[in-house]
Amino acid sequence: MNLKEEALKYHLGGKTSIQPTKALNTSYDLSLAYSPGVAEPCLEIAKDENLAYTYTNKANLVAIVSDGSAVLGLGNIGASASKPVMEGKACLFKKFANIDAFDLEINAHSIEEIVTFCKALAPSVGGINLEDISAPKCFAVEAALQGLGIPVMHDDQHGTAIISTAGLMNAMEINNKSFKNIKVVISGAGAAGIASAKMYRNLGVENIVLIDSKGVVSKDRADLGIEKLEFAKDTKEKTLRDAMKGADVFLGLSRPNIIDEEMLKSMAQNPVIFALANPVPEVMPELVHQVRKDAIVGTGRSDYANQINNVLGFPFIFRGALDVRASQITENMKIAAAKALANLAKLPVSEEVKKAYAITHLEFGKDYIIPKPFDKRVKAVVSSAVANAAIKDGVAKIKEFDEKAYFQSLQ
Amino acid sequence: MNLKEEALKYHLGGKTSIQPTKALNTSYDLSLAYSPGVAEPCLEIAKDENLAYTYTNKANLVAIVSDGSAVLGLGNIGASASKPVMEGKACLFKKFANIDAFDLEINAHSIEEIVTFCKALAPSVGGINLEDISAPKCFAVEAALQGLGIPVMHDDQHGTAIISTAGLMNAMEINNKSFKNIKVVISGAGAAGIASAKMYRNLGVENIVLIDSKGVVSKDRADLGIEKLEFAKDTKEKTLRDAMKGADVFLGLSRPNIIDEEMLKSMAQNPVIFALANPVPEVMPELVHQVRKDAIVGTGRSDYANQINNVLGFPFIFRGALDVRASQITENMKIAAAKALANLAKLPVSEEVKKAYAITHLEFGKDYIIPKPFDKRVKAVVSSAVANAAIKDGVAKIKEFDEKAYFQSLQ
Repeated sequence: MNLKEEALKYHLGGKTSIQPTKALNTSYDLSLAYSPGVAEPCLEIAKDENLAYTYTNKANLVAIVSDGSAVLGLGNIGASASKPVMEGKACLFKKFANIDAFDLEINAHSIEEIVTFCKALAPSVGGINLEDISAPKCFAVEAALQGLGIPVMHDDQHGTAIISTAGLMNAMEINNKSFKNIKVVISGAGAAGIASAKMYRNLGVENIVLIDSKGVVSKDRADLGIEKLEFAKDTKEKTLRDAMKGADVFLGLSRPNIIDEEMLKSMAQNPVIFALANPVPEVMPELVHQVRKDAIVGTGRSDYANQINNVLGFPFIFRGALDVRASQITENMKIAAAKALANLAKLPVSEEVKKAYAITHLEFGKDYIIPKPFDKRVKAVVSSAVANAAIKDGVAKIKEFDEKAYFQSLQ
Repeated sequence: MNLKEEALKYHLGGKTSIQPTKALNTSYDLSLAYSPGVAEPCLEIAKDENLAYTYTNKANLVAIVSDGSAVLGLGNIGASASKPVMEGKACLFKKFANIDAFDLEINAHSIEEIVTFCKALAPSVGGINLEDISAPKCFAVEAALQGLGIPVMHDDQHGTAIISTAGLMNAMEINNKSFKNIKVVISGAGAAGIASAKMYRNLGVENIVLIDSKGVVSKDRADLGIEKLEFAKDTKEKTLRDAMKGADVFLGLSRPNIIDEEMLKSMAQNPVIFALANPVPEVMPELVHQVRKDAIVGTGRSDYANQINNVLGFPFIFRGALDVRASQITENMKIAAAKALANLAKLPVSEEVKKAYAITHLEFGKDYIIPKPFDKRVKAVVSSAVANAAIKDGVAKIKEFDEKAYFQSLQ
């Protein structure tokens, strides 16, 4: 069977199920789980809404909400067709961070409709992962939901921003460059591109060139929305080719094979190329290595070094946020996640990881700037970093936090 | 520990979790469950929306939606406090009918808000069980969602109607009375009372006296909404006591201990008393048996004979509806469920049931007019009856239905 056939077979009947977690075998069990016993937790929560975190699954439950308007590389395929992706995300939440997740694909497409749906939904869950909602509406939707009292994050924006930031931190360290002085070219000005630009800027990058389907996002253009305008440059550069000249970093969130040899050669010394278009990147790593021996290359793929993969982020960001009952996911929590990932890559690689990836040698350096998704330590280090940042930012309801015990509990 | 303590302990951390149903151990598994493999089922569904039933969990997934406005006997306790009940319902769906269910407790309380939420939600699920939504808004909400293309049922209305109808069919057979000639008094004119009245009327009952908090629902009252008005009688009876005179059937969906000896004595020969207030019924079975040796008594409780319990209905009604992909749950499907339940009670009781209830002898008669919830045959007989009725009514997408094979598959 080829991948298509394998994938379709794998998906027959879907990928998730609901399981009762308590005994439900006798008439007495029923009287506890349902009438009359169930009235007791209801009455407790009616008195103190916070007890929903104690007597229901809310404390460990995230809703994955999508309108199917910007799915993977597939575009606006609608709610129903996006369901396999959201179910897959629910599986990743469970597998990597033991978080229960409902996938909700909604026929609600305007900013107001999506916001209304999520506000209505809020009492049911401990957090909301917005997913595959197209730019620019995704920005307004996410912003409008920050006061809900539960963490709400649009992963397409921040996932890539956080993971690429982690990789960039280590790449800059290896190359002995500082964020302040580098030129970063971002190809793709959608959800992930804008959010990455924001995070890089927050970390000190001053020279960011954003490229959209019409070329360089520059001040002389008249067609820019508010998010792009924020990064519009006063520049004569018009094209990707122009922008690549002297660039220290290329972040690709756009289309396959748009970077050629000439562009690679025009980049600054020790260039960093994160070509994240999936499955075919903006430039194949083989070509980069041929042309630029001094480059650090990352892709979204598991079959090349330095996989920049969202799965390193969202399960653990929500894990940390849920564990201290954060009311939102702040910028500091996201940066803490990136730093924790960057630091973990500097630790010796575990035998488990080597086994999972069938490699005998791997150490911090150009070919290993970011931990692997199957590294089980990611959960502990990222979740605890996020939880601590939530406490420091004053958004955590649970403020006492024994980091050592927590760290152990997550192993 | 007392029941309260036991129930609270049972509920710690909630009652449901999500489990991936496919292997998710290797990088290759990930590539099937998520990017890039997941694109394949997405593309298939984008071409034909019906394939969501093949490649996602939709075919077996029900959303339980409540605004918490009429929870158990607790009233309008709000969305958060209703969560233990909805999680409990999810457990029952799984336990009794192997249906996966998401519990969604929503901050959306007007008819329009609830309808909007459910319409947005529809692509995610194969059916919607509306729950604990107060009357009269529940009627309009349910009606507005019948064109969604997936089955939508408000269980508080139809559950009690269906199960009590099943009991009533057998009680009338035992008493050799016909629906046409009996006087039925229904105390409680909320969701369940109105729906029961409608179903009884559809089955031929002509003399129904509805009682609400102000007394008999009669034509001379000026305070009636459209649903009650439909059953308003031209009568001089004002009170429950008035109405009980000569009544063949009493259906209690109201308050504890409102029926006294005198009322019981004033009923017709061979009276049927379904006192379903929970946990304390409108009249205790002991009192009925003392005063009326000729009575048939049912309650909502598991510790008395003839438990009229919704769990005999909703799991199997949705099972049947999902299995033939019914676009709605028609009146005929509900009546088919009631008849199937009534017929099952006439079959010999299984040893399994006797064991579960620690009883040595049980046979069709005054003390056994309705099957027990732990009777595993309920699933097969009710689900297949509902599925067949859906096909006959032309609302089933799957029209070929090998009843024998289906019956076996559900054992």
